[in-house]
Amino acid sequence: MGLVVQKYGGSSVADAEGIKRVAKRIVDAKKNGHQVVVVVSAMGDTTDELIDLAEQVSPMPAGREFDMLLTAGERISMALLAMAIKNLGHEAQSFTGSQAGVITDSVHNKARIIDVTPGRIRTALDGGNIAIVAGFQGVSADSKDITTLGRGGSDTTAVALAAALDAEVCEIYTDVDGVFTADPRVVKKARKIDWISSEDMLELAASGSKVLLHRCVEYARRYNIPIHVRSSFSGLPGTWVSNEQPNGDEQVEHAIISGVAHDVSEAKITVVGVPDKPGEAAAIFRAIADAEINIDMIVQNVSAAATGLTDISFTLPKTEGHKAIDALEKAKAAIGFDSLRYDDQIGKISLVGAGMKTHPGVTASFFQALSDAGVNIELISTSEIRISVVTRQDDVNAAVVAVHTAFGLDSDSDEAVVYGGTGR
Amino acid sequence: MGLVVQKYGGSSVADAEGIKRVAKRIVDAKKNGHQVVVVVSAMGDTTDELIDLAEQVSPMPAGREFDMLLTAGERISMALLAMAIKNLGHEAQSFTGSQAGVITDSVHNKARIIDVTPGRIRTALDGGNIAIVAGFQGVSADSKDITTLGRGGSDTTAVALAAALDAEVCEIYTDVDGVFTADPRVVKKARKIDWISSEDMLELAASGSKVLLHRCVEYARRYNIPIHVRSSFSGLPGTWVSNEQPNGDEQVEHAIISGVAHDVSEAKITVVGVPDKPGEAAAIFRAIADAEINIDMIVQNVSAAATGLTDISFTLPKTEGHKAIDALEKAKAAIGFDSLRYDDQIGKISLVGAGMKTHPGVTASFFQALSDAGVNIELISTSEIRISVVTRQDDVNAAVVAVHTAFGLDSDSDEAVVYGGTGR
Repeated sequence: MGLVVQKYGGSSVADAEGIKRVAKRIVDAKKNGHQVVVVVSAMGDTTDELIDLAEQVSPMPAGREFDMLLTAGERISMALLAMAIKNLGHEAQSFTGSQAGVITDSVHNKARIIDVTPGRIRTALDGGNIAIVAGFQGVSADSKDITTLGRGGSDTTAVALAAALDAEVCEIYTDVDGVFTADPRVVKKARKIDWISSEDMLELAASGSKVLLHRCVEYARRYNIPIHVRSSFSGLPGTWVSNEQPNGDEQVEHAIISGVAHDVSEAKITVVGVPDKPGEAAAIFRAIADAEINIDMIVQNVSAAATGLTDISFTLPKTEGHKAIDALEKAKAAIGFDSLRYDDQIGKISLVGAGMKTHPGVTASFFQALSDAGVNIELISTSEIRISVVTRQDDVNAAVVAVHTAFGLDSDSDEAVVYGGTGR
Repeated sequence: MGLVVQKYGGSSVADAEGIKRVAKRIVDAKKNGHQVVVVVSAMGDTTDELIDLAEQVSPMPAGREFDMLLTAGERISMALLAMAIKNLGHEAQSFTGSQAGVITDSVHNKARIIDVTPGRIRTALDGGNIAIVAGFQGVSADSKDITTLGRGGSDTTAVALAAALDAEVCEIYTDVDGVFTADPRVVKKARKIDWISSEDMLELAASGSKVLLHRCVEYARRYNIPIHVRSSFSGLPGTWVSNEQPNGDEQVEHAIISGVAHDVSEAKITVVGVPDKPGEAAAIFRAIADAEINIDMIVQNVSAAATGLTDISFTLPKTEGHKAIDALEKAKAAIGFDSLRYDDQIGKISLVGAGMKTHPGVTASFFQALSDAGVNIELISTSEIRISVVTRQDDVNAAVVAVHTAFGLDSDSDEAVVYGGTGR
């Protein structure tokens, strides 16, 4: 038996009872003969409470001190978890990100891991300990200051440690049973996925699936670490995410479609009346990039020959909407467009599956399903293994349900079938 | 203007408002031209809440993890304090004990400082920052594990940093105005002491005065660091504690008595019927020491010649009472005493003042005052600059008031007079 890294989120360790329940699960893994490294988030609402305190003393908390503050949350949960494990008769030691060797750049509040040197973790494991590591945090290589990793930081900590320690698997424990073929709150017949390729998972994460963040999956793919996402509340197996299908599984042809993701957190900006000449699009997106805004889909209309003007639309997180409008208004004279339209009542539906590369007809079937459901398509974007459309936000749920059914993903149907259509 | 170290206790930073008030005071010191290092405790009840959480997951939390847990408290307060200072337009950086170079031994929960290497603090100060340091914590030289310093740990951190940084003064901010000639809750006419020698302060601390702990005063005396104990809620000067009277003060003869301390936290154990022969006392106190119990006063009665038996009484913290009784009962056969008597209804009154070394008659006047107040004396113990007696606990308050008045310490009297009596 080898080494496993387990990660528990804040909802799994929300109170003393949760910590004790998680401790039992960890001890079970140890009893099964594994070396166990545990990455833990802050308890329940701790981080929010700390942010609230910070806002009370300062309207704009500074990066370095904000990170120092927030990292107190994991310090509490990791120490309590180590105590709870020791109380079950097993040895455990807790480590801060810094102690665990999580080395980052110096960008406070959203640092990136640049190296992992887990010497103390290895020593603790060799001494028979379960090692508990604070998620979400590291130490800057340059300044030696404490940093935090931003959204999904604890998952990324777990995968990074798994890579550095050459773990068999990185288990991400959460409050859902795994990755589903669609959001079960929207699609009643959504089915838990037993295995999904890293490639498909990346697309699902980028398309609005919340279970695993893109960043963590990308790290796992690069270092070839299998992830097992599962519930800390049940004993059920969850979803495996890996580059190759796990050994031992039947190597049968699997479903071409992994799932349907949706996202209602984006808005659409249309730049109206842009002169249709070289350099215009570059000027628009330079203005957006300079404001440090990430955009998602971009569509340029075919130019109306008569006017020599065109429209350019793009989607971006709603939270960045005002910043983008401001940036474009400031650059209006230089770019020379007519006006801006802002629309935050949009939704995005994405169909993801590596199988669509080799199975023609997927796109046609996707559009047919949307059409049958009476859903109008406003924007389209595709990758090799994904098709996304933007619709009215009110249509999103119906669209997801319709597409899920059309591709045979519903749970009371047979296993998702190999699709054979015509043309894509 | 030189460097000052300021220490703020948990009651001074109990909430966001407290943190902002303290931040203003710190900025004032900086504006006055000082380099400022601040040592801060955990906010209000944070430490108690963390202890409560620990007890919920484990009845006997382990030392290393318990220290990891508790140090989260100062991490929160120091980061918030640094943010609040930055919000006032001044640069501040917070440092954990480990980052500040507070090196300790490896005794978790009550580590001792063995070295202070404040390189990062010095760099922060040289860069124009106010340095905020977590009190109560350090890092073990051997294991590199996080340690806590136990009771009074934040005061000791402040004094140790003051010594390592060659500070002009260590200011201890608290919720009282300074050191008083007696506990103001007991003696209405207690007077704030403007200056007290380290020597006298040590005896007061050992005798039950709670304002400064023995350990911190001892450290300050050894490194010749003046302490200024004062209120964080008022702007008033407090009490200076130093080896020599501050320069500039009139070098007049000062009061021979510094104050009256009392302590109702002790109990008395009497070992009855001990054979009066060499080695018996040693056997008793070996049994106590093996149980790691610190004792205070010891009195052996004159042996009754007829029986060859004697009684030995000693006082110890009430919290150690059961442990001591257990230890002695186990050793009963080896020691050979008759029985044990346990009395937790005692109190101790101590009169402290270096002046009593050279002024005869203090002891006689002390006993006379107790006698006049109808207080019966059960045990007596003296040092060169202190007399302590044990009485019934119910008599303690009356005894303290009587002694305070008898030695001219009452605030509406003239300044404490130089005492001239006969015989001590």
